[in-house]
Amino acid sequence: MNVSLLVVGSIAFDSIETPGGTVDNILGGSASHFSVAASFFTKPRLVGVVGEDFPDEHRRLFAARGIDTSGLVTAQGETFRWKGRYHTDMNTRDTLEVHLNVFGTFEPVLPEAFRDSTHVFLANGSPTLQARVLSQVRQPKAVFADTMDLWIDTQRNDLLALLPRLDGLLLNDSEARQLTGEANLVRAGHAVRRLGPKFVILKKGEHGAMLFSADSVFVTPAYPSADVIDPTGAGDAFAGGVLGHLAESQASLTQSVLRRSMAYGTVIGSLIVEGFGLDRLKRTDRPEIDGRLEHYRKMLTF
Amino acid sequence: MNVSLLVVGSIAFDSIETPGGTVDNILGGSASHFSVAASFFTKPRLVGVVGEDFPDEHRRLFAARGIDTSGLVTAQGETFRWKGRYHTDMNTRDTLEVHLNVFGTFEPVLPEAFRDSTHVFLANGSPTLQARVLSQVRQPKAVFADTMDLWIDTQRNDLLALLPRLDGLLLNDSEARQLTGEANLVRAGHAVRRLGPKFVILKKGEHGAMLFSADSVFVTPAYPSADVIDPTGAGDAFAGGVLGHLAESQASLTQSVLRRSMAYGTVIGSLIVEGFGLDRLKRTDRPEIDGRLEHYRKMLTF
Repeated sequence: MNVSLLVVGSIAFDSIETPGGTVDNILGGSASHFSVAASFFTKPRLVGVVGEDFPDEHRRLFAARGIDTSGLVTAQGETFRWKGRYHTDMNTRDTLEVHLNVFGTFEPVLPEAFRDSTHVFLANGSPTLQARVLSQVRQPKAVFADTMDLWIDTQRNDLLALLPRLDGLLLNDSEARQLTGEANLVRAGHAVRRLGPKFVILKKGEHGAMLFSADSVFVTPAYPSADVIDPTGAGDAFAGGVLGHLAESQASLTQSVLRRSMAYGTVIGSLIVEGFGLDRLKRTDRPEIDGRLEHYRKMLTF
Repeated sequence: MNVSLLVVGSIAFDSIETPGGTVDNILGGSASHFSVAASFFTKPRLVGVVGEDFPDEHRRLFAARGIDTSGLVTAQGETFRWKGRYHTDMNTRDTLEVHLNVFGTFEPVLPEAFRDSTHVFLANGSPTLQARVLSQVRQPKAVFADTMDLWIDTQRNDLLALLPRLDGLLLNDSEARQLTGEANLVRAGHAVRRLGPKFVILKKGEHGAMLFSADSVFVTPAYPSADVIDPTGAGDAFAGGVLGHLAESQASLTQSVLRRSMAYGTVIGSLIVEGFGLDRLKRTDRPEIDGRLEHYRKMLTF
């Protein structure tokens, strides 16, 4: 099987305040975090939009990581900007500023060469836009999407219409509760799955993630990290590890492949938080990732 | 090695309100939950106090589970009573009533036959009282204690004096943060360990637990339970599983034994929450526990 992993999402300049430090206008956005994370496993195809202020430095990073940027549009105006501040526990944050800029009117059009993508990640975005993107892919074999509380609130019906078209939905624990009304996370995860997606991945931040299949639950605790510098992008990098390894393994979505993919996602998620933005992923390589995976495996063995 | 597991703690009548139902005056208390949980692995020795209102029914339960109650004192007055109400998410609760009754003036004296106990669990109580109990045990091989926010607040120095005498301290994630001032849980766990105990077990409720040793962290996610009826006693039952298996295995505190003990504790913790009070543990047996342990092991394998 000739595999190719497509991601459609945001590319942003992030300004981040944490208890430990501050950075301004670093490379961020769901598609950036996802594609760099996935690039350790496959050569992702990136679709997104940036403004005229987007520096060559970031394009060079994408190129160096083997990311196909032929779907990266440069539009008149400024790149999406986000500013946030993390609380002391690093698990909660306040969004201080959002300037959608060119991302606000972005209507993704897949380059013809991308329409045969086998693996698709629809990063967090409105479900109507996610659906329009998905319709441009001819015969996807594995379609995963992310969503958030905003869409559950404001475009619930569109989200419900999208769910049966998905192999996997990723969402936070609080969003699963919001979507289903179930307080118990195990019930909530299964209830989301009954809304359509074959698999549901419940993200619990520092507590890890859960994978819900038709007749099983697989739990991946977070890799214990003593050096959490910046949690921004951890969820998208986790997804990049999951989808990246799914694509790399070229297998159908069996339990064993999905579980190993979740473990890779966990490892990538534990790496990205050890630096601001993509700093830490820029300094890692596949041997370090595989080494941490083996350590993680041992950590869970009793 | 001739092993014997001693527990000193509370025995109570619990009245519990959950979103799913209400019970009044059922058997509760840390020593009850711990000793019944541990009884699937060994024959625990129970030290505690009850009032004249304590029914034979509960004594028969202890006896049926092979618990040695020769250290169970019946004092003039009423048994400790606790009343609590769980919130919708089952992770938080309000204490509505506490009547210490005979437990308020309890000064545990170990029966002579208990002073040779090899394994000791000092259930949640004031650190000065825990220290006095510990001094009555001649040559303990494994001493574990539980504590809570109240003692960290009000008897911090006494708690700090106790810690170096412990092989293991169990505490909640929020308590570890409170004790150390570290927001990151991995740092907090290691910081608690540096205060004296050889091992620290950080309890995270529905998110599982973490074991901190001199040079490793072992993570045990919770066993995913769709039927959480009543979380009361889960932490003490978890401890009962851990210490029960430690005693049963008759081994020194090696990583592999500790890890398997944590897994057993996780399984017992997942069982007790499936009914009010001790209802569910009354209906389980070692084959079911071992079956769930194997399922849990498979769930963590990738």
